[in-house]
Amino acid sequence: MKAKVVVMPKAAVLDPQGAAVREAMQHLGMREVKNVRIGKYLEIDLERDGADVEARLHKLCRDLLSNPVIEDYQLVKE
Amino acid sequence: MKAKVVVMPKAAVLDPQGAAVREAMQHLGMREVKNVRIGKYLEIDLERDGADVEARLHKLCRDLLSNPVIEDYQLVKE
Repeated sequence: MKAKVVVMPKAAVLDPQGAAVREAMQHLGMREVKNVRIGKYLEIDLERDGADVEARLHKLCRDLLSNPVIEDYQLVKE
Repeated sequence: MKAKVVVMPKAAVLDPQGAAVREAMQHLGMREVKNVRIGKYLEIDLERDGADVEARLHKLCRDLLSNPVIEDYQLVKE
């Protein structure tokens, strides 16, 4: 089983890394770029699909993988 | 138009950040975790869909957003 987690800064939170990349892309000729936001992408391989794996994954997403004050996460199981 | 880019370390490249997260997840009771790999996730807002936007995005993915020696990228347009 695989799980994929995307952790992104909340919409209301400044993303200086994204702003720097936007500037760099525009500077390199990509004038169409309006906005860039940068987050983390995690691919998690799991041994088996236990009963409460998804609930425990959500807990770890909140407690370990993201900072709920400034970040949102999305968990997709495959 | 939106483009999403996932940049991941190549399979043959060590991912110490992923290994640290795997250890932490196991330590926090998630014994099912076999492997974790961590990459970057970029959401790019584009003003319009120009003729060669996709080709130029691919070039920027290679030149600016990833290091092709140790990373692979995936570009998805929406």
